[in-house]
Amino acid sequence: MNWAIFSIFISILSFLVAGYFYYWIAKLPNPNTKLNKLGSLIRKGSFAFLKKEYSILIIFVGIVSLLILLFFPSPIWESNDIFENISMVISFILGSILSALSGAIGISIATIANVKTALLAKKGIAQAFTCGFRGGAVMGMAVVGTSLFGAASLYLLTNNPNIVLAFSFGASSLALFAKAGGGIFTKTADIAADLTGKVELGIPEDDPRNPAVIADNVGDNVGDVAGMGADLFDSNIAAIAATMVIALPLGEINMLFCFCALGLLSSMIGVFSSRIVGNRTPSKSLNNGTYLTCIIFVALTLLATYYCGFHLRIWCAAMIGMLIGVIIGITSNYFTGDSKTPVKRVAESCKNGSAFTVLSGISYGLLSSLPALIGIGFAALISYKLCDPIGEGYAILGISMSAIGMLSIVGMIISNDAYGPIVDNARGIAEMGNLGDDVIQVADELDSAGNTTKAITKGFAIGAAGLTVISLLAAFSEIVSTQLGEPLNFDIMNPTVFFGALVGVTIPAVFSALLIFGVNKNSQKLVKEIHRQFEEIPGLKEGNVEPEYKKCIDIATVGAIKELIPAGVIAIIATLLVGFIGGVHAIGGFLTGNILSGLLLAMLMSNAGGLWDNAKKYIEAGHCGGKGSSAHKAAVIGDTIGDPFKDTAGPSINTQITVVSLVSSLSASLFLLYSIF
Amino acid sequence: MNWAIFSIFISILSFLVAGYFYYWIAKLPNPNTKLNKLGSLIRKGSFAFLKKEYSILIIFVGIVSLLILLFFPSPIWESNDIFENISMVISFILGSILSALSGAIGISIATIANVKTALLAKKGIAQAFTCGFRGGAVMGMAVVGTSLFGAASLYLLTNNPNIVLAFSFGASSLALFAKAGGGIFTKTADIAADLTGKVELGIPEDDPRNPAVIADNVGDNVGDVAGMGADLFDSNIAAIAATMVIALPLGEINMLFCFCALGLLSSMIGVFSSRIVGNRTPSKSLNNGTYLTCIIFVALTLLATYYCGFHLRIWCAAMIGMLIGVIIGITSNYFTGDSKTPVKRVAESCKNGSAFTVLSGISYGLLSSLPALIGIGFAALISYKLCDPIGEGYAILGISMSAIGMLSIVGMIISNDAYGPIVDNARGIAEMGNLGDDVIQVADELDSAGNTTKAITKGFAIGAAGLTVISLLAAFSEIVSTQLGEPLNFDIMNPTVFFGALVGVTIPAVFSALLIFGVNKNSQKLVKEIHRQFEEIPGLKEGNVEPEYKKCIDIATVGAIKELIPAGVIAIIATLLVGFIGGVHAIGGFLTGNILSGLLLAMLMSNAGGLWDNAKKYIEAGHCGGKGSSAHKAAVIGDTIGDPFKDTAGPSINTQITVVSLVSSLSASLFLLYSIF
Repeated sequence: MNWAIFSIFISILSFLVAGYFYYWIAKLPNPNTKLNKLGSLIRKGSFAFLKKEYSILIIFVGIVSLLILLFFPSPIWESNDIFENISMVISFILGSILSALSGAIGISIATIANVKTALLAKKGIAQAFTCGFRGGAVMGMAVVGTSLFGAASLYLLTNNPNIVLAFSFGASSLALFAKAGGGIFTKTADIAADLTGKVELGIPEDDPRNPAVIADNVGDNVGDVAGMGADLFDSNIAAIAATMVIALPLGEINMLFCFCALGLLSSMIGVFSSRIVGNRTPSKSLNNGTYLTCIIFVALTLLATYYCGFHLRIWCAAMIGMLIGVIIGITSNYFTGDSKTPVKRVAESCKNGSAFTVLSGISYGLLSSLPALIGIGFAALISYKLCDPIGEGYAILGISMSAIGMLSIVGMIISNDAYGPIVDNARGIAEMGNLGDDVIQVADELDSAGNTTKAITKGFAIGAAGLTVISLLAAFSEIVSTQLGEPLNFDIMNPTVFFGALVGVTIPAVFSALLIFGVNKNSQKLVKEIHRQFEEIPGLKEGNVEPEYKKCIDIATVGAIKELIPAGVIAIIATLLVGFIGGVHAIGGFLTGNILSGLLLAMLMSNAGGLWDNAKKYIEAGHCGGKGSSAHKAAVIGDTIGDPFKDTAGPSINTQITVVSLVSSLSASLFLLYSIF
Repeated sequence: MNWAIFSIFISILSFLVAGYFYYWIAKLPNPNTKLNKLGSLIRKGSFAFLKKEYSILIIFVGIVSLLILLFFPSPIWESNDIFENISMVISFILGSILSALSGAIGISIATIANVKTALLAKKGIAQAFTCGFRGGAVMGMAVVGTSLFGAASLYLLTNNPNIVLAFSFGASSLALFAKAGGGIFTKTADIAADLTGKVELGIPEDDPRNPAVIADNVGDNVGDVAGMGADLFDSNIAAIAATMVIALPLGEINMLFCFCALGLLSSMIGVFSSRIVGNRTPSKSLNNGTYLTCIIFVALTLLATYYCGFHLRIWCAAMIGMLIGVIIGITSNYFTGDSKTPVKRVAESCKNGSAFTVLSGISYGLLSSLPALIGIGFAALISYKLCDPIGEGYAILGISMSAIGMLSIVGMIISNDAYGPIVDNARGIAEMGNLGDDVIQVADELDSAGNTTKAITKGFAIGAAGLTVISLLAAFSEIVSTQLGEPLNFDIMNPTVFFGALVGVTIPAVFSALLIFGVNKNSQKLVKEIHRQFEEIPGLKEGNVEPEYKKCIDIATVGAIKELIPAGVIAIIATLLVGFIGGVHAIGGFLTGNILSGLLLAMLMSNAGGLWDNAKKYIEAGHCGGKGSSAHKAAVIGDTIGDPFKDTAGPSINTQITVVSLVSSLSASLFLLYSIF
């Protein structure tokens, strides 16, 4: 059986599912004109951002395409096969277009589903949940379907994993900018809206008088929906590409596609089964769907392994990956869940002032790296040892297949994750459209389930990225060894490797710092604009006139795009510099350092941020003095600090690591030809 | 010429210099009884802390001695030479005693020099400076003299670098607890005194009515003087021990001792030359002394290299180490100096609230890792490449000699560093003893010079630790290779190595988190006690009655010691666990991960902390709204967060890395015998 062809078949099936859900949501009636107007403001704002972002990224894609044509996989003047260079360019462009497309599809459905969910919340929680979740599932199915379709068809057409790497690079470099740009936008709007609205004027969140309120809702879409979609699109395709590099010489490509296709199939079944039945809570419904997906995946792949005669040991490696993914998700949930000790302790420490809020949050964030990194380490170690006895080269394949296992249920994960901003938006729309307290309460319940799952899926995403980048490192080593004709060794005691590692360590730190600076700078600009509107527009404070929403969106957009460029470009240039200074050995160290500090900082930032957010909510629920107390004020400061941590820098680090790894793999032959040391 | 014997001679000379300075300060007249009383309170409190700390550490030293006797360098029942085990125990105990002793000497002189400096400040800045600086120099000469004396005499007696490693381990494990325990104590007292005094009551810093004010001054001594002394004692001896392991098979021990001895000699000359002449500012006088030391060291070692026929390439490696140390110090100064952009920007951002203070400080802290890590990387890479052509094994020797070069002027560095807390204390004593505004102004000027140099020396210390731990890693590899009889390879693509690296990365994070939690918890206890005193002691607020200073010291002491144990023990146990699970390969990765994330976090925490401290001072000097403005409040929050960053966790990470490296080297043979993978 040719599983690559089967993968294409399953991808098309997933497009049909996505289409069906899209149609199902679109045809839901919407008689409320006020809501329609709000929805269309958000939708227009989101697409305006995307348009601006993509129009700048097209220049980047153009420049990189030219560079690829000239230099990759080898300089065009030394190449025997110029067609390969051309194919890589096409494949790179295809990757970036598909990545952009999945972001656009996600935003398109999310900005319809948000209004419909708000409307359905009038009729009760079950229907509203289904609407919000199916909105997320459109994104999930589209993203995973597209990445699998792209990888499988490029493989069938060219049989050349380099081409798939270029495809992956296209997807990743777009994801880097989408994630970072969206992340800066969303936090710019969020912080500015909170500071001027909640803090200065004392008006509630999502109050329509606040000029930044629409920008805030747009941010949920461009940051959380489009950015996150691009991010997981890129992790998924990178894992497939890296595994392909390793699996091809072993003749195990068929197994790779089998597991990917069955993962997508399991996610489809899981997505259909996620609904509120009886008294089940929204968060239980989401988790049940995830667990069901896992069980189906285990069963289907076991059957396939048995009937197709794949190695059982590789199957075990994939299962270990999936299991450790779930465990990392659960431990992330421990550090950020609002019924757990860390959140309660941080909330308690808020009573002593914001310095203690920050110190305790950062401490827990640092601690949270322990289970995740040990989990990734064990997954890699065990799957390596499991597959080593099969034969030479299989040990490394074990590691990549364990990444594939972890990412198998990614369709379900994206659906859960995109559900979050949709219901968050629905809550905002319900508030802005005065749908009444009952509706807001339902929306709140849906939203809180979204936050809980978000913590789990984020942990999962970082875990998967961790294993993926290890396989990317392996792919890099494989590519260089093949070109050199001898096995390559990244010995830490080699000072070139160590030099690379020291530089690599600083890149995620510098990258995060630049993004946080970006949010800082940009939100201060937006605060100024909001102040201007309140001063210059008479009647705005009283709610008689509508604020100039569009101006706020424009400022946040322009600023976000301006700020994301240096961060992204520095990561890529640093890679090239290290490669041309220290050669492939320095790059091996560089990638290692990058992965190690990247994972640490990503866990720290995501978890500390989530923790502060939930500590604030915990206090708002009436603990430690409740809303308006001094503890609450301290918690709000913590939450503001956590915003760019968890939604801008933290989740962008994954993508940064992937991009840097892919740049290294693609430039391997150049580094071999030209380097100082 | 036998430079080991010369080293002993120079060490004895340094003891004489220390003794002379001690005597010079002690015989300065002190007619002021009030000051005498304050000084004696601080002195008694400091020694009470030391006594309590050491009485607990004696148990730790006892347990570890037993373990060494039983297992190191190889299990006693398998050893051919039980005498070696016994020698290692003796050497370990000697190391810890000498480390404890240098802490005690430092405190002893610092708690005399502080009062005398305050008194001399009446007569003008020049004499006060000399007194403060010579107090620091006692510490500098004693610490470096002791470590060189210990290493040289143990080498001459046994010719066995393992014995010196055990000596180094004794010094380091004591330093770990001294640094972490002192760090928790000092920040507990500082934060509690500030929160209750400055924030709640609005009384000035160092007001004698505040019950924690003496504890705060004690903290400067036990944290900054004793802790820092133990820390640099340990870096210095670790660098010597690691280089000895590498130099012995190459027959280059003589050169090692030559450079160490000449470094100490240069520092002696530098120390004598540091004084205020004419209108020179205190900070200029400190820097001039440092630069002079460097120049003398360059000249002396060049002469020695020429006349003794050492390899000129190794001399170059040492010079590169020294040069890069100075560069790292200067870049640290850029990120924390109060006339530089980062401090001004952070102060500006304080106007928008404390969330922005924190975000911008952390971002700059993250950025600051870039020059330091790249500097360390280049120092290692260049010195390796420089020495590689000499012959096999020399490349690694180049790296360790570059660490020796960086640490050559450590005598001067410690003198500068210990000067800080002495003049800081003098300022406090001047305030508490009502010596008048003129005296306080002089003391302030001395203090501010201390802060500037502190930033430079801290960067220097981290840089030196970075190179030292690379040579410790090399020493570990050398030891294992010798025992295996074949070269060892820590290939990153080996998943056991990678597993170790992932675990290693988390250790500095967990270690820092536990220390910060410790400060958090402990200062909250102390705040309670201060509140109790203000409530229960009538007349305290009015200044009619003296507070119960001793109770505050006791609470801070007991808490600090209780909190430091888990952090220290976890680092050691994690090393043993990783070694017994993954063997020597996992340990190679573990040390790498530990070094990489340790350096990153150390730079982040030290520099962000220093930056916040100076941003606060910058605002207090009248910028951005000045004292009492909302920007100032935000800056105070930043400073409080920075306190445990820069004085507890940040500087303890170095020692944690050294301890873990030494545990690994000493346990190498055990890991070879017993490990799961």
